[in-house]
Amino acid sequence: MVDILHSVGIRSSVDEVYTALTTTEGLAGWWTTDTRGDGDNLGGVLQFRFEVGGFDMKIVELDSGRRVLWEVVDGPEEWIGTQVDWELGQAGEYAKVLFRHRGWREPVEFMHHCSTKWAVFLMSLKSLIETGKGAPAPDDVKIDDWN
Amino acid sequence: MVDILHSVGIRSSVDEVYTALTTTEGLAGWWTTDTRGDGDNLGGVLQFRFEVGGFDMKIVELDSGRRVLWEVVDGPEEWIGTQVDWELGQAGEYAKVLFRHRGWREPVEFMHHCSTKWAVFLMSLKSLIETGKGAPAPDDVKIDDWN
Repeated sequence: MVDILHSVGIRSSVDEVYTALTTTEGLAGWWTTDTRGDGDNLGGVLQFRFEVGGFDMKIVELDSGRRVLWEVVDGPEEWIGTQVDWELGQAGEYAKVLFRHRGWREPVEFMHHCSTKWAVFLMSLKSLIETGKGAPAPDDVKIDDWN
Repeated sequence: MVDILHSVGIRSSVDEVYTALTTTEGLAGWWTTDTRGDGDNLGGVLQFRFEVGGFDMKIVELDSGRRVLWEVVDGPEEWIGTQVDWELGQAGEYAKVLFRHRGWREPVEFMHHCSTKWAVFLMSLKSLIETGKGAPAPDDVKIDDWN
């Protein structure tokens, strides 16, 4: 099992970050404008759609201002069964986000792509909260010929 | 052992990317303006300096247009002995860069930070080659209160 790990510090409160991870408006503001479902519904499923496919995430843990945990129940084969883990903590004027996309079976080339792309979307989340404007798909920053 | 994995596609040739990884001018154009040493000298040491410290990398493999491999010989304790591996391949009009920072002993919080920051610098490399302008330190994109 191999993991994608990232972190960003956002000049904000953990509550603001938690809102951006658990509301449709928040999620649509940094990841993809085509976000469906209720991010605050434990056990429910969020659907994220992109030009080239999408992901269905079951919400398996919600701890306000501290953690959001999703499990991938549909999407690319390599993603199914993996977990997307958001851990939040306040450090002075920064909300610290520790991000882990855990449980990849193999470090395939697609995992390299997804790692870089997650970083790009974390910077979009940071920008959304700090400036009011993120860069969600379909207007996301492209990193290669695939996406 | 855990690894940081990334990939980007650069609208260019592998030779142009190789040049950006093996010349002082190239390296200073996307990573840090304070780059010293000769990137094309197998067995030599490159010194990269930032406001908050730096890294010394021994050049352990050079395969023109295909691979560059560095080993960290000085820098933060967590980095020493790790390897930074650049694998290049042409895919149509894109030069594909597979990046691996291998051999971290533990997935510490600092590794999360470095993973995201590497993605930011890979986007700087992409920008340097595609537009002529990268974002090397000290004018790099900051991701948190540390850097």
